[in-house]
Amino acid sequence: MRKQLDFFFFLGSTYTYLAVNRAEEVAARAGIELRWRPFNVRSIMLAQNNRPFIGKPVKLAYMWRDLERRAQRYGIPFRGVPPYPIDPDDQANRVATVAALEGWCPQFTKAAYGMWFLENKDPGAIEPLSELLQRMGRNPGEVIAQANSEEIRARYAAETELARSMGIFGSPTFACGTEIFWGDDRLEDALDWCQSH
Amino acid sequence: MRKQLDFFFFLGSTYTYLAVNRAEEVAARAGIELRWRPFNVRSIMLAQNNRPFIGKPVKLAYMWRDLERRAQRYGIPFRGVPPYPIDPDDQANRVATVAALEGWCPQFTKAAYGMWFLENKDPGAIEPLSELLQRMGRNPGEVIAQANSEEIRARYAAETELARSMGIFGSPTFACGTEIFWGDDRLEDALDWCQSH
Repeated sequence: MRKQLDFFFFLGSTYTYLAVNRAEEVAARAGIELRWRPFNVRSIMLAQNNRPFIGKPVKLAYMWRDLERRAQRYGIPFRGVPPYPIDPDDQANRVATVAALEGWCPQFTKAAYGMWFLENKDPGAIEPLSELLQRMGRNPGEVIAQANSEEIRARYAAETELARSMGIFGSPTFACGTEIFWGDDRLEDALDWCQSH
Repeated sequence: MRKQLDFFFFLGSTYTYLAVNRAEEVAARAGIELRWRPFNVRSIMLAQNNRPFIGKPVKLAYMWRDLERRAQRYGIPFRGVPPYPIDPDDQANRVATVAALEGWCPQFTKAAYGMWFLENKDPGAIEPLSELLQRMGRNPGEVIAQANSEEIRARYAAETELARSMGIFGSPTFACGTEIFWGDDRLEDALDWCQSH
């Protein structure tokens, strides 16, 4: 069996755009399988008083510039600063939770990030989300109803609680057993760790 | 003339330990000269309400673990979590400012970080600082008096103001012209930028 690396992410984290677009390929090259696990990093960050950008315009401006340069470095498209923040009700993240259970999470998350970064639409808003699901050949009404079910809400909350209990406080975080690596820029460290442990 | 990369740092920043121990060699390999520029990142961070670790034990614990793993990756010694924070009166940073003017900043800063991380002593406290200067063949009384002079205080403040005006908000930051790169983990990005611009 191939080794696995848990990819905890929040659809709404900015640097996660890079990870979503490159992690699978980099992991595959290392012979490691990624498990895509959406969770509510926002609730963890708020509970821990961890607000990296709110009221911090200098740091926020740097983050976008750094993200732009890193995207360029990786050959990932970047067309200017997209709307931010997004997905206020976690609807897109709950759809990602459905997708993770059904095996189409990578496809959905990439498409959602593309809609956010390249079309400047919030994939958590009902219209763009429906459009996104339609393009993927899914039934928007059915998927969104499922995403809003108690079962999926509970699953999303449980994944969040699991992440919190592991010491995870940011997105993306790569986890190999109990060892956690925060940030797209720690993907390679995580894969090296995973290969050697 | 060789290209230059400004290395803005605060003696007291944790990840700067990595940069202090590897930046010169990596820059030299890229054919780029580093200019070591101590500045008061703490005052900038407090003014910008940027407190990444105060009251954030989960993030703080992760930072030390990540730093330990990265040190291991780079072959830099790490012997456990050192005292933190240090240099409350910026005395070590002002000595670094003297050293930068006189050409012995890399040597001093490396030794100061060694004292902090490997001997668990605050290089900003008078006794360890004196010992450090003595080991380097400097006259502690003279250097410390100079570090406390109005001239050096003004220089340190001016470097801090310059950094702030460039949008610098963290240590280490590498600057190539007006382009800034924050974090030891952006050293390679900064050098690539510097080489191609």
